[in-house]
Formats: sequence, C-alpha cells, structure tokens
Amino acid sequence: MSEWILTYEGFDPDQEGLREALCTLGNGYFASRGAAPESQDDDVHYPGTYLAGGYNRLTSESAGHTIENEDLVNLPNWLCLSFRVRGEAWFDASTAEILSYKQQLHLREGLLRREIRFRDRDGRQTLLRSRRLVHMALPHLAALRLELVPENWSGEFKIRTAIDGRVVNNGVARYRSLANRHLETLTIEAVGAESLLLKARTNQSHIEIAEAVRTRVFSDGEPLRLERDTAMEADYIAQDFCADVTEGQCVAIEKTLALYTSKDKAISEAALEATSDVQRAEDYPSLEASHLGAWEDLWQRIDLEFAMQDDSQGERMQMVLHLYTFHILQTVSPHSLYQDLGVPSRGWHGEAYRGHVLWDELFILPFLNLHLPVVTRSLLLYRYRRLRKAREAARAAGHRGAMYPWQSGSNGREESQKVHLNPQSGRWIPDHSRLQRHVNATIAFNVWQYYEATRDTDFLCYYGAEMIWEIARFWAGTATYNPQRDRYEILGVMGPDEFHDGYPDAREPGISNNAYTNLMVVWIMNQATKLFDLLPQDRSADLVAALGLTESERQRWRDIARKMLVVFHEDGIISQFEGYGRLEEFDWDGYRRKYGNIQRLDRILEAEDDTVNRYKASKQADVLMLFYLFSAEQLRELFGQLGYEFNRETIPKNISYYLQRTSHGSTLSWVVHSWVLSRSRRSGSWDLFTKALDSDVADIQGGTTPEGIHLGAMAGTVDLVQRGYTGLEAREGILFFNPRLPQRLQHLRFQMVYSHHPLAVDIAQDRFKVTVSPTCRTPLQIGFRQDVVEAAPGTTLDFEI
Amino acid sequence: MSEWILTYEGFDPDQEGLREALCTLGNGYFASRGAAPESQDDDVHYPGTYLAGGYNRLTSESAGHTIENEDLVNLPNWLCLSFRVRGEAWFDASTAEILSYKQQLHLREGLLRREIRFRDRDGRQTLLRSRRLVHMALPHLAALRLELVPENWSGEFKIRTAIDGRVVNNGVARYRSLANRHLETLTIEAVGAESLLLKARTNQSHIEIAEAVRTRVFSDGEPLRLERDTAMEADYIAQDFCADVTEGQCVAIEKTLALYTSKDKAISEAALEATSDVQRAEDYPSLEASHLGAWEDLWQRIDLEFAMQDDSQGERMQMVLHLYTFHILQTVSPHSLYQDLGVPSRGWHGEAYRGHVLWDELFILPFLNLHLPVVTRSLLLYRYRRLRKAREAARAAGHRGAMYPWQSGSNGREESQKVHLNPQSGRWIPDHSRLQRHVNATIAFNVWQYYEATRDTDFLCYYGAEMIWEIARFWAGTATYNPQRDRYEILGVMGPDEFHDGYPDAREPGISNNAYTNLMVVWIMNQATKLFDLLPQDRSADLVAALGLTESERQRWRDIARKMLVVFHEDGIISQFEGYGRLEEFDWDGYRRKYGNIQRLDRILEAEDDTVNRYKASKQADVLMLFYLFSAEQLRELFGQLGYEFNRETIPKNISYYLQRTSHGSTLSWVVHSWVLSRSRRSGSWDLFTKALDSDVADIQGGTTPEGIHLGAMAGTVDLVQRGYTGLEAREGILFFNPRLPQRLQHLRFQMVYSHHPLAVDIAQDRFKVTVSPTCRTPLQIGFRQDVVEAAPGTTLDFEI
Repeated sequence: MSEWILTYEGFDPDQEGLREALCTLGNGYFASRGAAPESQDDDVHYPGTYLAGGYNRLTSESAGHTIENEDLVNLPNWLCLSFRVRGEAWFDASTAEILSYKQQLHLREGLLRREIRFRDRDGRQTLLRSRRLVHMALPHLAALRLELVPENWSGEFKIRTAIDGRVVNNGVARYRSLANRHLETLTIEAVGAESLLLKARTNQSHIEIAEAVRTRVFSDGEPLRLERDTAMEADYIAQDFCADVTEGQCVAIEKTLALYTSKDKAISEAALEATSDVQRAEDYPSLEASHLGAWEDLWQRIDLEFAMQDDSQGERMQMVLHLYTFHILQTVSPHSLYQDLGVPSRGWHGEAYRGHVLWDELFILPFLNLHLPVVTRSLLLYRYRRLRKAREAARAAGHRGAMYPWQSGSNGREESQKVHLNPQSGRWIPDHSRLQRHVNATIAFNVWQYYEATRDTDFLCYYGAEMIWEIARFWAGTATYNPQRDRYEILGVMGPDEFHDGYPDAREPGISNNAYTNLMVVWIMNQATKLFDLLPQDRSADLVAALGLTESERQRWRDIARKMLVVFHEDGIISQFEGYGRLEEFDWDGYRRKYGNIQRLDRILEAEDDTVNRYKASKQADVLMLFYLFSAEQLRELFGQLGYEFNRETIPKNISYYLQRTSHGSTLSWVVHSWVLSRSRRSGSWDLFTKALDSDVADIQGGTTPEGIHLGAMAGTVDLVQRGYTGLEAREGILFFNPRLPQRLQHLRFQMVYSHHPLAVDIAQDRFKVTVSPTCRTPLQIGFRQDVVEAAPGTTLDFEI
Repeated sequence: MSEWILTYEGFDPDQEGLREALCTLGNGYFASRGAAPESQDDDVHYPGTYLAGGYNRLTSESAGHTIENEDLVNLPNWLCLSFRVRGEAWFDASTAEILSYKQQLHLREGLLRREIRFRDRDGRQTLLRSRRLVHMALPHLAALRLELVPENWSGEFKIRTAIDGRVVNNGVARYRSLANRHLETLTIEAVGAESLLLKARTNQSHIEIAEAVRTRVFSDGEPLRLERDTAMEADYIAQDFCADVTEGQCVAIEKTLALYTSKDKAISEAALEATSDVQRAEDYPSLEASHLGAWEDLWQRIDLEFAMQDDSQGERMQMVLHLYTFHILQTVSPHSLYQDLGVPSRGWHGEAYRGHVLWDELFILPFLNLHLPVVTRSLLLYRYRRLRKAREAARAAGHRGAMYPWQSGSNGREESQKVHLNPQSGRWIPDHSRLQRHVNATIAFNVWQYYEATRDTDFLCYYGAEMIWEIARFWAGTATYNPQRDRYEILGVMGPDEFHDGYPDAREPGISNNAYTNLMVVWIMNQATKLFDLLPQDRSADLVAALGLTESERQRWRDIARKMLVVFHEDGIISQFEGYGRLEEFDWDGYRRKYGNIQRLDRILEAEDDTVNRYKASKQADVLMLFYLFSAEQLRELFGQLGYEFNRETIPKNISYYLQRTSHGSTLSWVVHSWVLSRSRRSGSWDLFTKALDSDVADIQGGTTPEGIHLGAMAGTVDLVQRGYTGLEAREGILFFNPRLPQRLQHLRFQMVYSHHPLAVDIAQDRFKVTVSPTCRTPLQIGFRQDVVEAAPGTTLDFEI
C-alpha cells in the first residue's frame, strides 16, 4: 500500500470496468481528444479512445421514442500491440495461463505499469512488463514501452503494431442499441521506416483526427533494424515484424503516438503535424523523464498532504485523494487552456452522459480556483462562448437573458434526453431533467467564486458580468409576482433532487418554489446588483448599453432579492419545494428490507407502478446544498433580507430532518452531506466522508463507475478536505479561514494561490498557520474566523485554534 | 471632404486597385476568414475574399527554380448580386452608360456606400444605391443592401443572388503563374425559402468554410414573396427572381451572410451554424444599428483627435489617420481574441506576401498596447504557440533556444522565398531575406513593451519570459566571441535594410555585425537578465528548471551585454554593418536623373549587372531604427554598458549621414525617419510625416498598395502622432511623457489605457494635460520629462511645456 500507487493484483472480472475507469490516463488536452482508457484484460486489445465536442444525432426507436443525443466519439485505438511466440496464437490473457498479474497506476508520475507472467501450452514461460504515459508536458504525445523476457526458452517473437480505426462506443450497456460508430477513415498510410498514420473524421461534426505512431524495438538497449510487413484493411493499418530472442534476454518495444485534430491551433494540417511530431519524438525514457517533471510541478501546486492517527488508514485515504486529484488533472489541466473545453460529468473516457456538460463544475471549479485559476478561467470561457446559444434558448422559451441548458452539447444547446429507460421496469419514462434550470445558478456562482479567489476584474468586465447579468435577467423573467402573497415565485422547475420532477397526479411536470433554486436566485440578484459598483464605471456603462439593461429591470432585481418566496413546513424546516410538507412519509425500513440497495428508489417505485413524487424522499436533499455553498453568516443575511428567520438551530434541524429522508442516490450526495455535517457534527461527517471517499474506488453505486468516473464527487471530496475542514472562503478581498479538522485527522498541509499570490497553509488540531510567499507584491488580508489581519509578503501567521 | 469619409467619384481605371485595397471591409474575426474586398468596377462581380491560415504549397518552375509558398486562400464570394432590366443583358458597369458614380467608405461607421446612376441603350435611367458592412459586433455576419430606383421607366427587374466558389487568387500580377485555386467545394444547397449554402474546403490545410446567405426583397419597405429559380453549377449556386417596378419606386434587396469555419469554437458543424445564423439574422437596418454601436465603442477607445493651423489640411490628415486606424481594426480587433491570428504584412485582403507574418507587429503592437492591450496579448500568444517550431528551427540550424522565421507560415515555419523575380531584369535572383534574424528581436521587444504598458506579470510568467529567454538563448549561441577584439560578434545575418544581403563578391550571403541587430541583442540580454528578478521566485525557478537554463548561460548573457561589438566609421558614425564604411558612395543624383523613382535601386542595379551591395545605399537605414525604438537615455545606457561613446551629437549626426544615403524603398522608412526627426528637427519630420501619411492613399511606391495595404506603415504613422509627438513611454512602472508637437499641429487629444487604467491625454503647443479616470483603483506614476508625479484617481495633471 502506498499513498501514491493504486494497485490491482490478479484478475477479477467483476472489477474490470471499475479498474478501467480509474486507471485511465490522459491530460487536459489529450484526454479530451485521445485519452487512453485501459484494456479489459491485457495489453493487446483496448477499447477506443475518445474525442469530445464531436456531435452525433443518435436515434433509437425503442418503445416508439426517439432519443437525440450528442455523443462522445471514440478515437482510433493506437495502443494495439500484439505478440506471439512463433507458431503460437497471438497472446490472449483470457486463454493463456497467467502465473501472476499486477497492475499499478502511479499517481505521482502519471504512469500505468503492468507486469504479467504467463505460460503457453508448451510450457514456455514469459514475463511481460509495460509502462505507459500520456504526456503532461507535450500535449500531443503519448507513449508506451513493452518489455518481453522469455524466462525459460529461446526463439522468435512475432510482433504486430497497429492503429485501429474500427472503434465503437460500447462503454455503457444501455446505450448499445444506439448508433455507436462515429468515425470515417480518410487515410491510412505507412510513413517512413518506422511509422504508421491513420486519419479519420467524425461523421457529423467533421473534425479530422490524425494519429501517427512510431514503433521501435530494442534488444538489451540496442535498436534492432527489422524487416516490416505492412498490412492494411478498412480502417486499420498494421505492421508485423519478428525478433529473435534468447532466454533471459529482454526485448523492448517502444510505441509513441502523436495526435492532432483539425481544431488545433498553430498547425498546417493535422496529419502533417502528427507525422512530423512522432518522427521527431525522443525515446521512451526521455519522454518519461519530461513527463514526470510536469507532473511534479502539478503536484507541488495541488497536493493536500495529511497525517492521521491511524497511519495505515491515512495512507489509503491519502491514496484515494491522490487518485481523485489525479483524475481531475486527467480531465482539466494546464493543457486545457485555450481549448474549447467544458467539464464533462464522467471524465473524457466515461461514455455515460456522452460527454455532455452538466453542473458538475459547481464541485470542480472552486477546487481549481485555489491551484490553477487560469484553468477555471478557461472553463468559464467555455460557458461564455455559449452565451449566445443560451440567449437563443431563453428567447425560444419566451424569456429575456440567458438560459443555459441542463445537458450542454457541442455548441451549447440543450441535449437532455426526453425519455429514459428504467432498467428495473423496462419502460421508457418521460424525462423532465431539462427543467433543472438551477444549472444557471451554477454558472453565476462559479463566475463569482472565480472572481473572489483571483480578484480578476478584467474577467468580470469582459465576460463574467455579462454572464451574471444575462442569467439574472432570465431569472427575473421566470420569477412571477404573486400579489396575494406579495412574494415572487418560481414555478415549474426541478431542483437538483431528481426524484421530484412534478407533483403526483399533476398534468404538467415541474415543482414550484424549490428552496435551493429560489435562494440561489436571490443570491444572483444580489451579486448582479453589486456588479454595478464593482465594475469600472465606463465598462459598466458600455455593457449596460450593449445589453439594453433598463433601470426598471434593475429595480425588479432588487425587488426579487427582498421578496422571493421560501416555503417552510413544520417548525423551521425549509420545504425542499412548495408542497413537500404534504407528501407522504416513505417506508424506508420496509423498502430497505425488501430491496437492499434503494439508492435508485425512483426506479423501484416506478416498476411498482408507484412514483417517488408522492413521498418525502430525496435522491439528494437539495435544501442541504445551501449549507454546502454558503456559510451560516451568508445564509443569515440571505434569509434576513427576505424577512425570514434563520437562527442557530436552522442548519442542524434541517440537516437532521433531510438526512432521514434521503436515499443518497447521487454520488454527490455523500459529499454535500458530509460537507454540511463537517461544520456541525464532526463524527457524522467523517463517516459520510469515508463513504464519499470510497464512492468511486469501491463503486458503491453498483455499476456506474465503469461508465465513467464521477468527477464532481471526486472533486467535491478533495475539496471537502481543502475547504470544508479549513473553513476557507474568499470574500470581498479577504481570505477567511475557520479550520476544524475531524478528530481522526491530525495534520493538513497544502499550497494554494489567492489573488495571484502563493500561500502555504498548515493546519493541526490546535494550530493554524498560513505563510505568505515573499514573492507577493502586496500584503494580503487574512481572516481567522472573524478577525482580519494584514499579512506582509514573506510572513507566517500563526493562530491557536 | 470629411475627416470620416473617404470618397471616390467617377471611374479612374488607374486607381481601381488602390481603391479596392483601401475600401476593404472586415473585422478581426471576419477579415481573417472572409473579408469583403471591393470590386474593380461595380456591385456585380467581386474578387474573392480570404482565409488566412490556409496553407498551400505552390510550385513555380520559372527559371528552373522552385518556389514553395504558403498562401492566403480566397473564400467563396458571397457578394454576387446581379440584376437586369427585362430583355437586357446583366448590368455591367464597363459597358453601361454611367451618368454618375460615387463611392464612399464611411470610416466612423465601417460602411461602404455607393451610388451609380446609369442609362441603358433604350434610354432607361436607373439609380442604384448600395451599403455594405462586415459586422463589428456579430463576428460571423456581413450584410449588404442594394436599392434600385427606375427613374424614368416601369417594368421588370430580374435579380440574381449567388455564392461563387470558383474564386482564385489573382491580386498580385507576378504571382499569377502560380497555383491560384485553393478551394474544393463540398456541398451546395438551397436552404429554406430564402437561403443558399456553399461549403468548401481548403485543399491542403483541410479547413472547412461554410457560407450561408439569405436574400430578401422589399418594395417600399414591404417584403415581397417572389418565386425563385435555383441554379447550380460546379462550385456555384444562384437564385433568380423577378420584381415588377414602377417609375420612382424603390426596390431594395438585402443580402446577409453568415460565415463559419471548422476552426471555430462552440460549434457543432460549420454549415449547420452558418445556416442557423443566417436564418435567424435581423434585417439590414437593425444589423447596421448594432454594427455602428460597436464601431462607436472602438473609436472612443482609439481615436486621435487633432487640430491644425490649416483646417482643410487638418481635415485631410485626420481622414488619412482615421483610414489607417480603420485598417488596423479591420485586421486586428476584439474579434481576433482567442483566434489563432498573427499580424499579416499586407492586411488580410492583400495577396502580396501571401498572408505571411513578418516583423510588422513591431509597428502595430505598441500602438495597440495603449488602446486594446488584450488584442496585443492575443497576437503575442500567436507567437507563443509557435515557439515550438522556432525551437525546432534553431535546433536544425545547430543552435539552442528559439529562432523565429522571417516569413512565418501557418504552423510557424519559415516560408521566405529562396528566389525572387526582378521584374526590371526578368531574372530570378537568390533571396536571402530569411537571414533577417532580427525578427526575433521584434518578438522579444514586443513582449516587453506589452509588459511595460500593462504590467501583466501573469503573461510574463507563463508566456513572455519563456519567449524572451529562448530568444536570448538563440542569440547567445549565434554570437561568437572574438578573442582578438575581446568582443562578441554576430556574423552572416541581414539587417532590416534589404539592400544589403551580403558583401560584394563574397561567396556566402549575409553581413557581419549589423548595428541594429547587435544592439537589439544587447538589449535582449539585459531584459532576459532582469526577468530573473521580476518574476515571482517560484515561477522563475520552475521555468529555469523546465528550460534547463544554466548559470553559465546566464553568465554568457551578461558577458554579451557588456562586450557586443558595434562598429563605427568616420567620426561617431555607427556603421550599418561591419565594412559599410568601405563601400562606395552611390551616385544618387545621376541615378535619379536617369531613372526618376529609384526607391527600388536594388532592382535597377541588378538589371545593370551591378549590385547595390557595393554601395553606401539603403532601402531603409536600419541604424536609425535604434533611434526609433529607444529613447536617447536608453541608448546612452546601452552604448555606455558596452564602453562606447554616445553623446549629444550621435543622434543628429547619424540621422543626417544616413538620410543622405537612403532610397526610402520601404514604406516603413518614411515612418521611422520621420519619427526619428520628430525628436530633433521638427520641420524635416513634418515633411516626412506627410509623405508617410500619403504612402498608401497616394500609392507612392507606384503600384504596391493594390497588392494589399502596408499595415506596418499605417500603424507606425498613427503611432508617430500618438507616441512620437508626445514622447509617451511606459518604463518600469512609470508612464512618461515628453510632448513636442510639430508647429503645424495645434492640439492633440486621445484616450488610452495604461496598466489597465483609463487615461485622457490632451496636448497643445504649450500645455500638456493628463486625466486619470476616477475608476482607477490605485494612483499612477506619471513622468513629465524627468519629473515623476503620483496622480490620484480622478485627478488631472497640468504642465506647461
């Protein structure tokens, strides 16, 4: 067990999908175009690799419904590297006798290593070692090195290297009836003595993808010049060659890939660049060295080190946190800069949600803000570029402003499904998830969080303010004034809790006055109003003119901020939505006894011809999201400005109420609830934290991790350590801390940036220290609980907790 | 005459090319993809429009030489809009009887307007009015409106609207023997009731270009529903329809274009987006209104207003300055942001140099720094993305660091021709212009200037420092130490003066110790060394490690900065290069008598079997570039650190020496010399300034403006007013002014930004005022000559000159 290595030993067919998802290699650039997901069983056959932003309309006529979906696109598979002993069949791990098997994902180095010892029918025993990387410094390159050692024989190996363009999307079982082939091959070619090229094009979006590979063979470190036979089939090109080996001697095969797409900048043409790059690439050891250097830099910026009472448990926890951080960096990294990339829900390799962008960035960007704020900026620009489509969507729905979609496709349009399959009942169910308009609050919230963490006024001026104002405008149009109540209401939406998409027996979908949505809107109105003072006057005037913002609109924003409705039921319990209090209590114990895992209660009840809409039962209790996103002080202000009471008891009371009525059907649920508890009940928080920590590694949802990682939950878990336990909050030019480590956690240390200044944070149970880098240009305002201190460059503040 | 309108009346075949170049419409996004250059003679047939970044290998076997060149690509022509009176031929301005003709480029509005009155064989008299724009707020749109009024007849018009993909590059006569067709059509299609679509692809770089047009007809403001006949030919799609008109009634045709390429972000597929955009576009009047709003914002940021003694001369000068500024904004604008665009020498529509990027940004970016620094940043990132290619080029030449090419093509590789044609002799001459390594100094200089103007340390940290250090490294490797002299030398290069590409009778091309190059290298070594202190320590350490910069390299940089050779001849005259002093004096008067215009002396002499390399004769005296780029104080320091004398006399003495030995064969020459004189001899400066001001409008080079504008000269001319006459200089956190208006200029006012803060500058002959915007967050350091004052936000500083 190491805190930096994820190890699997031996075959476990039940775990293959999970292992594959967790051991995916990529980098911000490459992952989004050509990550290299792992094989099911050996180094020989691999599933394809992926390109996001490709776009395909899939049609399934199942149950008479049409599903239109944008899709992730498989990239041509470059990993194909087969071998066989002369006279034998190509090595196949599923039929060979495996003597030992070990697979390790080295998180610090971004390397996948494998070691297999096997024996063939004639008793020939061979050791196979491989290492592989997707380069973190050279965004277009990936490389693998395979070593073969005949342990008790001499003879001839035959080796085949190939690029396979016949890849399909088959990662998600229930999508398999949909169109799954998204590439057409344009050219296949052998280039020079050592390289192969395959160029393909996505069939709808017409993105060209060029992959060039170079394969070299070494014996005892010396390059071998071998005759090669090139074979081409449709969408496939391979080269075969033979190497003589003697017992104990190591034959090493290095395969290097260069990948370019037609979307790349500073290129002439994708195939030319890929070919030139791969021919020029250094050998595997040099590539690995520069790759490690880049990872080292990244870890230095981003790692959270901690110490626990129990060292062995600490090591495992640290490993899982490293794994999650690693996956964040696989998906978004400095290589994402200036790419047109959003944050996909399930990583780039996960085929569930087909690469669509949902609201997961709510859990990811606040984490990135403190380490790689330029990456956040780049991801927010992805949204900014789709502001026009969001405006069109709002207009089409009869509103002004911008309405971002729940599932955002390539050009920013709504790609949420309209029906989905309940595997439990086999029925196609209407899907109203597009009513989750709260994704618009996510975007506004993230713009603001980025601003608070960086004080990047330029970003606000040219992008952020426009997004916030247009989103505020949309909500101002969606909110309706109810004169009886003298309150504004938001009707016909869904909150993050997907169990409630309507009232039982109502004809129209949607629920009214979702507390989470309504309060986020109040917060947005506040920030939208603050922006007028925050932007330089001339810029503010320009933007107001360009958007045609009127004084009466601003007046309405201020009015909504004072008169939005929040519904309560019982004593001080915030209703998840209006009418929640009148729903029936659910028989949790009875159903748990009957079904065991009831996380997907919605499916269970639908299969029973019932509906979860009838019950006080949440997949994820979205009232609690408020306690996740806002501090108690902020909530007191928000409720206060609306004239509602919010006292010391409100938070614990609501937590306890909703936790009893939650199935935790979403991986995000563990994170949110654990975070919320971390501020009140430390021990309860710790239990949920360890659940959240395990959610992907142990695949607690039962089968969905192999469809892709849960990136939001992973980032949220890491961020719980970083911001939840530290009470870290950037607000109005001050960086606040309010640390409170769980009892089991003895010590926590990390590097961060705030407003472009590097800081080091060091927290123990009873001490809190923060060091401002001597390279800062100005003193920083640091808040410890309520006290604010000015910290000069080069100084360390030291507080007793 | 208006200071905002460029008017041409009547036909002048000699002026058509010039008119076309100067009246080109575009915007930063659009121009680089589909600017709309003007027609030779009417609204009917237009030359194509252009796409940069396309890339074509052209082969000319002329004289047994092969020329390989990357090329600008013509875009499908969307402007095709023909009409005819029933029974007549299509209107053709070259055969019709033109009663009056007026063409106006409205600079403030970014509109081209035209009015033609003509009569056909049967005496039918018709008025034709058109207005056209390339939208400055909606980067993908362009629109035109054509109005036809039958003045003395009634009957039927037949109208044809089309997209023509059969475009070729034919703007430059001497390139016409090269391949000139760079597009293949992918689809042509009529879409819906009103629109046409043509999608094409560049034949080498495989960039897809989709153009969709919508054509609507109105009579007295009411839309007409007309039957349309669609006709398709190879690479061409048209629709014909008829409209009945009565005498005096106006028929208006509105044609709107949406253009997307496969390189665009936030798209699904280019043709889908173009079609959806054009169908959704507002009508012409609304588009014009939002277009004007965007131009108004731009002019507010960028305009230089001045008053002269002579109002009418002032008006013309102001018009020309507006024209030049307008052209800068046609080429680079806020729409260039996040595009992969560099600064092409001849604008996007000019075919000379085929869209390659040379060193013109030296004259353009310093101007943009003070108005649109984000655009500068974006243009510098274009260079940063090509750093890798520059490294490869250095390595291939046996050097470390980065060697940017003289003519940079799509992916950043060298695209300078190896031979060129002397039209005077008809001979193909070896072309050594790639030896102009000083382009590397341009890039380093511009990074630094951008930093000084914005204090954008982040840019330095992540991009700028790496470029400067890699360029310093290259020069450190190129410079050779001469122990006899105890000096470093740079051999075998060319300076900006292209008349001298070698020594007469030398076997190898290149000259030694070009003073401009050597001193720029000294300056680079200084800045490269300063950077170590300027960057935050951790970032500096990371970068040093990533680049593998050693202490001995840094030592060499410091050594070069003290021991670079500068050669002098006669008394205090800086030799343009080593050996210049020994060249023969040229018979200027004799040749002027013999040839008249001797700007291209090189061609004249080559045709006489002589060579300009033998003479003290410059196309552009590059020693004087030093006085252009650096203030006298800076030069005193630079020469001082090398141990050379630089006194009060050095500048005037060298100016006077070199001005007598210059042919002004480069349009940049007028700017540089006028700038240099502005600091010493005001009257001489004014004369050269008026020459520079006329260089494009009057096409003083005799025929090259029609091949494209001279963007560097245009920007330099405007910048001479902005920085030359004001002595404006951002240095080490202080914004210095040292204003000195020419006698004829009474008053000068402009808005600018410095370090993100807006300022207003107001200069008269005897007063200088600068107002710091109240929206500034911190006070600014303002220098007036040697005195530095702190200016609080909202205050005006007022000085007597």
